[in-house]
Amino acid sequence: MSNDAFVKELVDALGDVVVTDANRLASYREDRAMFCDAGTPCAVVLARETAHVSDAVRLASAHGVPIVAQGARSGLSGAANAIEGGLVVALERMDRVLEIDEDERLVVTQPGVFNADLSRAVADRGLFYPPDPSSWEFCTIGGNLATNSGGLCCVKYGVTTDYVLALEVVLASGEVLRTGRRTVKGVAGYDLTRLFVGSEGTLGIITEATLRLRPAAHRPRTLAATFDSVHDAAQGISAITRSTVIPNLLELMDATSVRAVDRLLRLGFEERVGALVLAQSDAAGVAGEEEIAQIAAHLRDAGAYDVVLAEDEAEAALLLTARRQVLTAFEAMGTTMVDDVCVPRHRIVDLVVGVEEIAVKHDVVIGVVGHAGDGNFHPSVIFDGDDPDQAARAHAAFDDIMLLGLTLGGTITGEHGVGVLKRELLAREIGPVGMSVHRAIKDALDPRGLLNPGKVL
Amino acid sequence: MSNDAFVKELVDALGDVVVTDANRLASYREDRAMFCDAGTPCAVVLARETAHVSDAVRLASAHGVPIVAQGARSGLSGAANAIEGGLVVALERMDRVLEIDEDERLVVTQPGVFNADLSRAVADRGLFYPPDPSSWEFCTIGGNLATNSGGLCCVKYGVTTDYVLALEVVLASGEVLRTGRRTVKGVAGYDLTRLFVGSEGTLGIITEATLRLRPAAHRPRTLAATFDSVHDAAQGISAITRSTVIPNLLELMDATSVRAVDRLLRLGFEERVGALVLAQSDAAGVAGEEEIAQIAAHLRDAGAYDVVLAEDEAEAALLLTARRQVLTAFEAMGTTMVDDVCVPRHRIVDLVVGVEEIAVKHDVVIGVVGHAGDGNFHPSVIFDGDDPDQAARAHAAFDDIMLLGLTLGGTITGEHGVGVLKRELLAREIGPVGMSVHRAIKDALDPRGLLNPGKVL
Ligand SMILES: Cc1cc2nc3c(=O)[nH]c(=O)nc-3n(C[C@H](O)[C@H](O)[C@H](O)COP(=O)(O)OP(=O)(O)OC[C@H]3O[C@@H](n4cnc5c(N)ncnc54)[C@H](O)[C@@H]3O)c2cc1C
Ligand SMILES: Cc1cc2nc3c(=O)[nH]c(=O)nc-3n(C[C@H](O)[C@H](O)[C@H](O)COP(=O)(O)OP(=O)(O)OC[C@H]3O[C@@H](n4cnc5c(N)ncnc54)[C@H](O)[C@@H]3O)c2cc1C
Repeated sequence: MSNDAFVKELVDALGDVVVTDANRLASYREDRAMFCDAGTPCAVVLARETAHVSDAVRLASAHGVPIVAQGARSGLSGAANAIEGGLVVALERMDRVLEIDEDERLVVTQPGVFNADLSRAVADRGLFYPPDPSSWEFCTIGGNLATNSGGLCCVKYGVTTDYVLALEVVLASGEVLRTGRRTVKGVAGYDLTRLFVGSEGTLGIITEATLRLRPAAHRPRTLAATFDSVHDAAQGISAITRSTVIPNLLELMDATSVRAVDRLLRLGFEERVGALVLAQSDAAGVAGEEEIAQIAAHLRDAGAYDVVLAEDEAEAALLLTARRQVLTAFEAMGTTMVDDVCVPRHRIVDLVVGVEEIAVKHDVVIGVVGHAGDGNFHPSVIFDGDDPDQAARAHAAFDDIMLLGLTLGGTITGEHGVGVLKRELLAREIGPVGMSVHRAIKDALDPRGLLNPGKVL
Repeated sequence: MSNDAFVKELVDALGDVVVTDANRLASYREDRAMFCDAGTPCAVVLARETAHVSDAVRLASAHGVPIVAQGARSGLSGAANAIEGGLVVALERMDRVLEIDEDERLVVTQPGVFNADLSRAVADRGLFYPPDPSSWEFCTIGGNLATNSGGLCCVKYGVTTDYVLALEVVLASGEVLRTGRRTVKGVAGYDLTRLFVGSEGTLGIITEATLRLRPAAHRPRTLAATFDSVHDAAQGISAITRSTVIPNLLELMDATSVRAVDRLLRLGFEERVGALVLAQSDAAGVAGEEEIAQIAAHLRDAGAYDVVLAEDEAEAALLLTARRQVLTAFEAMGTTMVDDVCVPRHRIVDLVVGVEEIAVKHDVVIGVVGHAGDGNFHPSVIFDGDDPDQAARAHAAFDDIMLLGLTLGGTITGEHGVGVLKRELLAREIGPVGMSVHRAIKDALDPRGLLNPGKVL
């Protein structure tokens, strides 16, 4: 596709926020997913304000040029991948936190702020923005909103959509829509806010968000429990989720994950470890002590051979770092396809056992790590990407994991989104009526199909 | 409109679930809102299963007959009012709780179950469904979903939409859509579930819902604080919402409300009471004691002349009953138009003062009661409905309250919805782009405009 006339008009209109240099364009091709088609954009708009986004979209629309919004391209589904010859609207320079309202407990932010930067900015005021994807140091709030990201503390505090009060969105027409409100409640009209959350850039481009905050949480107590088998660990987690305790973190790492991280960070785990469970309680005072004791008891009952309370914050932080570094550690072992199924919590054991069977069937290594307390797992297929035979088996295993998730009453994606990677399987999950409603809504908001075409639907 | 041919086909197809008796039809005309247009339907389908809804909608659609879904008609915005000669699909007989899954903490229910019945059914299993509108004994879960109802414990636990995992919805075409999933997380496709929540029957008819539950809450501690002025009480509430305490109930009643309820229930409040604040903390053990003490201190600092802890459950229940009976008590005083604005919490004092000014300006009585901890108030204009001059002034006051809400950065409706009553003002809140996106979505899902026409948009 040659879009020279478009690019010229764009540069005339927006000047130096437009990138056209071939080398720089290449770096905006793709996110972190494996095996997803990507193209080189004809131009990247490094928007600094809403008007840049709106003008760029209007021009692209007039020329029929497809448009992909990008945050930090940390996504794992190819959703942010550029279209060959299309326009990329990068939000990374719209990186200012605009307002923190302590009384109302909300923050107004541009979309390009990194999650961790926003979290720290509000923490400085004694406030807490819970959604904390493992990628929080290198993903943007806009990307979090567009994929409805989860994270480690969702198990108690919910996901991104639970914290969104209002959005500013540039529509396919270039018009600027404001959804929602600053009040905690409000039912005037349809919930457009949450329609855009999780829509992966296919319905509009988010240029501002108003997010609800919580008071700072109490300092959590952290424990690590080691098991001989991932099966036992999964039993322990199911026991906790069935009980009345609500931990603010409940993560599982299987033997492959523990070993991978151990190689990366040299934590000194013993050979015996078949699975590691990390848990926290941030209940206040005595209640927190009681909760962590109950969690420990459930894990011991399920067969944990060792349950250790972190002695201080440094030890707790190290354990969380280990968890957050798992994908990086996998990537050091080979090409990695990170899956993302979520199942009802009492099916966790079935999922873990099923994934082991899939690994055997396709003769691949699958490391399992996940937000176990939500039933949300990232079985990650690790293989030699240069070996076509292994790659084919890895793909087959990846798809089988999603089908297993569906069979267990779950979903093909708990938090990473559909993007390009899972597009083929979406209809399997939501059915023909669901697909036609999706298409009707997409057509209503983007009649010419220019926003992130080929993704999700 | 004569729809004889349609009614005949409907009766042929569905038999005795169709009501055509004129007397019975009349009782399905309207909800509890004042001054909203309503018509007499040509037929009411007392659906007992999804197929009844689907068949009825398909037939109505074929004949171009407008369709209104009804729960228990407890709504306060005219949203459930029948259209003259149109079809009413009543969900009141789809009143079974289908499944309670204790492990997964969810309930699957038909839409016609009363909120209180569902709440009690899950409480018997040690579980908790938080959304608790004051009307809970006589409103349905379907109505709650369609209006995204709030209630007394929203201030800690959120509103209806925060508890919805999945829906079954009959579309305008008669097709049956399933949205969402049973897992706690999931991002496959758009959030259709929450698009239907709060759509007031204009996008589809909800025939089944899967709702998230919580473990039973701890028994709350309840306090009542009396003030000389509503202004002081509002200051006290703002102080609490700014603090780190999160009560599970924080309600305000002004002098008019207290007196009205006192007349109805003979609670023996002294003449002096200018405002009453009710608050609860359901934090566990010592934390709960600390929280209620902090709440009491904030209220005393703001000028409460008396702060009393409920001695036992009976006393606490009586206080809550008093709060829940306010609207009934107003209705005993005259014709009542219940408004429903929500403002940022630090603007509560401005709202209360502004409403007093509106009452003076239009020379009407306005009782103020509300979910103050959320900034959500129901200033209720009480007047002689037979006096056209008073009625005109009441209307003007009602509209001024909404405009005040908007001026203070709030919304025209916190939980009751737009319906017929607030339709004129919706555009003022959401603006022209918002309106056009609403219309695009409505057209996409209901191209012929047969679902609850004349409501919301
Ligand atoms: C090591 C690692 C760990 C991860 N851990 C987690 C985790 O725990 N939980 C989790 O949920 N995810 C996780 N992810 C996935 C990813 O980080 C998240 O999906 C993140 O939200 C993407 O943010 P981003 O800014 O990088 O968005 P991008 O990857 O740039 O974009 C993602 C999608 O959002 C769209 N988009 C971006 N910005 C906007 C905008 N302003 N308006 C409209 N659309 C927009 C894009 O078009 C694309 O569809 C992880 C990824 C990695 C590499
Ligand atoms: C005394 C009193 C106190 C109240 N207190 C509160 C309160 O604290 N909080 C609050 O939020 N509300 C309150 N309300 C308002 C009202 O009770 C709620 O809006 C309630 O949710 C309506 O439920 P319903 O079953 O009566 O619905 P209806 O009044 O029958 O219908 C309401 C709307 O929902 C639609 N609808 C109903 N069922 C379905 C379905 N299955 N599918 C699709 N659409 C459907 C209707 O078409 C209509 O648009 C109160 C009302 C009264 C009279």
